[in-house]
Amino acid sequence: MKKFQLPYGVQDYLPQECYNKELVENKLSEVFYKCGYERVETSALEYFDLFDGILPPSAINKMFKMTDSDGSLLVLRPDTTLQICRMAAGNLDTGEINRLYYCENSFEFLTDNSTARTREFAQVGVELLGNTGIDGDIEIILTAIEALKAAGLKDFLIDIGNLDYFGGIIEECGFDASDAKEITDYINNKDVLGIEMFLTSKRTEAKFRDALIGLPTLFGKDNVLDRAEKLCSNKRSLKAVRDLKKTVAAVRECGLGDYISVDLGMLCGNYYSGLVIRGIAKDLGVSILDGGRYDGLCGKFGAPMQAVGFAIGTKRLLKALENQGALRETLPCDIAYVQLKNFCKEEYAYVNEMKKSGKRVQKTFFTEKEDLLSYCRKKSVRTAVIFDGKNYEEIKVKG
Amino acid sequence: MKKFQLPYGVQDYLPQECYNKELVENKLSEVFYKCGYERVETSALEYFDLFDGILPPSAINKMFKMTDSDGSLLVLRPDTTLQICRMAAGNLDTGEINRLYYCENSFEFLTDNSTARTREFAQVGVELLGNTGIDGDIEIILTAIEALKAAGLKDFLIDIGNLDYFGGIIEECGFDASDAKEITDYINNKDVLGIEMFLTSKRTEAKFRDALIGLPTLFGKDNVLDRAEKLCSNKRSLKAVRDLKKTVAAVRECGLGDYISVDLGMLCGNYYSGLVIRGIAKDLGVSILDGGRYDGLCGKFGAPMQAVGFAIGTKRLLKALENQGALRETLPCDIAYVQLKNFCKEEYAYVNEMKKSGKRVQKTFFTEKEDLLSYCRKKSVRTAVIFDGKNYEEIKVKG
Repeated sequence: MKKFQLPYGVQDYLPQECYNKELVENKLSEVFYKCGYERVETSALEYFDLFDGILPPSAINKMFKMTDSDGSLLVLRPDTTLQICRMAAGNLDTGEINRLYYCENSFEFLTDNSTARTREFAQVGVELLGNTGIDGDIEIILTAIEALKAAGLKDFLIDIGNLDYFGGIIEECGFDASDAKEITDYINNKDVLGIEMFLTSKRTEAKFRDALIGLPTLFGKDNVLDRAEKLCSNKRSLKAVRDLKKTVAAVRECGLGDYISVDLGMLCGNYYSGLVIRGIAKDLGVSILDGGRYDGLCGKFGAPMQAVGFAIGTKRLLKALENQGALRETLPCDIAYVQLKNFCKEEYAYVNEMKKSGKRVQKTFFTEKEDLLSYCRKKSVRTAVIFDGKNYEEIKVKG
Repeated sequence: MKKFQLPYGVQDYLPQECYNKELVENKLSEVFYKCGYERVETSALEYFDLFDGILPPSAINKMFKMTDSDGSLLVLRPDTTLQICRMAAGNLDTGEINRLYYCENSFEFLTDNSTARTREFAQVGVELLGNTGIDGDIEIILTAIEALKAAGLKDFLIDIGNLDYFGGIIEECGFDASDAKEITDYINNKDVLGIEMFLTSKRTEAKFRDALIGLPTLFGKDNVLDRAEKLCSNKRSLKAVRDLKKTVAAVRECGLGDYISVDLGMLCGNYYSGLVIRGIAKDLGVSILDGGRYDGLCGKFGAPMQAVGFAIGTKRLLKALENQGALRETLPCDIAYVQLKNFCKEEYAYVNEMKKSGKRVQKTFFTEKEDLLSYCRKKSVRTAVIFDGKNYEEIKVKG
């Protein structure tokens, strides 16, 4: 029955899962709102041209594309951060600090249906736009930790890195973009042999070799930052390490040190500059939160400004919460009733009064009292009401 | 600068508009939840085949289409009701009553960018699935009225019709589908001359002529139902009128008669059977709510059952609220602060304490006290706080 199937990599949210999704989205939203963030929504449809030249070909290839009535190429929102840069550049006062958050679905045109990745994915995220410097980095990390805690997640870590550390060394080595791309892949895969062979082929100086081969090992406790500092001498890399030291110290000072870990070998994203962060949960093989600083991105939409933010993968967070036994059951109605005669105003008045007092009330269409009672027992509804025309009987139902 | 423009017929929701959108969505959701409805979300992507043969060609042509990696034709969600029928048939216990609601965007491939219609449109809607009969019709109408009232709308009307009235007459006349489509268009346009010419060309019997020519005038107060009853003699039409009489009487009995109006000439929708409803607001040229009974639709997805529901056009409702002066301004933060020295734990502790006590607190990045104060005055923030390292000063700001 392919006709009634969904395409691969997309899903419905049925009541039970949707209930937890909404709970989580509301808790995350409240954290962001309390820090002054304001909600926005972006268009799901964009011109392809918007992203052309901004995203690398690997990302361009992963967009759902369709033709508009005038022949223009349209795409489905690939990533809300890009949309928000475009929106902010065109509509907001870019001289001010803008704090924005969103709950939106993005789309990735995956052609391999064997992966666990999804092609429509819900994200809740924040963007802190404007010149906030290192204080912005700290705010974003603290907000990420508070958000995941508020969602009810217990065992998680925020990995913190800085792309300028790697960038400074690459610059010093004189590598071009294609070399940088190749070595980035080795480092992300923690493929030390690949790095060594590449550096040998390039006859890279010994001091840079040590730094680049050391990169995949520069993760864990803060002492990696001392090691990292000794492994390089260029200004950009050293500034990156010192910024990270300040950032990490600030998070520790707030008593949240147990939630963070340093990883200088984390070289992720299509547009990040400086800080990068990644949230990981126990027993889940994929990140639940991704973010970083993207100071160069808004400028590509005509409004140069600093920016830093993150997005939480809602479905992944729900999975992590499920693994930790932190999901909730949907709540039953407080009252279920039947009308054995014709609809009457007394029924409506009763239901309205109950709803006003905070109760959740559902009409059922059973014709026998016993059917209503057994329904209430099955669904954990604690009060059954039987209307017989204008008059009614309330029955307390035991579990 | 087409590069940074949105395609026609789509939009972003900036903070001010998004704030009202969320308020309205929450108020509508609360009404539905209190009546026992549960939230669901559907996939934005579907196989084209799902809709082929279910929707008429005019609707099929208005879907955004794209090709999947395996050559399948995909479409963007054209209408959440169809998705929910597909979802319910595949996943829910169709022997029970299912009450579902949603807040989702649907897509319509309009090729005319001069219209006020949008190509991505947000809807909040409910579906009452299962054998609820006329009590289901009444519940849906009462819920529609309560939802619009809860959203803060004042001047509105729910038009109520029943497609079986027209259907019965058409059947009696022996018109085929193409005839029915032609006369439906005349009636929807209240084109009495068109109807007369059509009926003359078909040599329709006088008694049916009176009923069909009268149809566009059968709207307004309940006495139109008495007139309608006299204009026809077939069983199906008479049952439609009598059902409407009961439904209208029930709504009046609940004291909500001022919100309803009867319209037997309202022949709308691609899949409705029986009851149809339409919500209209003062000074708005388009409907803000559309719905009806669609008893035949779930069966097309393999799970025959009765169903009735409606969708509210969120943007149109916002426009109606704006016309009635019922939109709200976004709320400012309660506290805005600066840190004149380096980030410190005392700052974090203060902010956390304030947030716990319910305050909304935003960090700013001014370097001068006076800049913070003038920002607070401009943004109606009532408390400014200046951190000078570990110590801070709270300043009440006058409006």
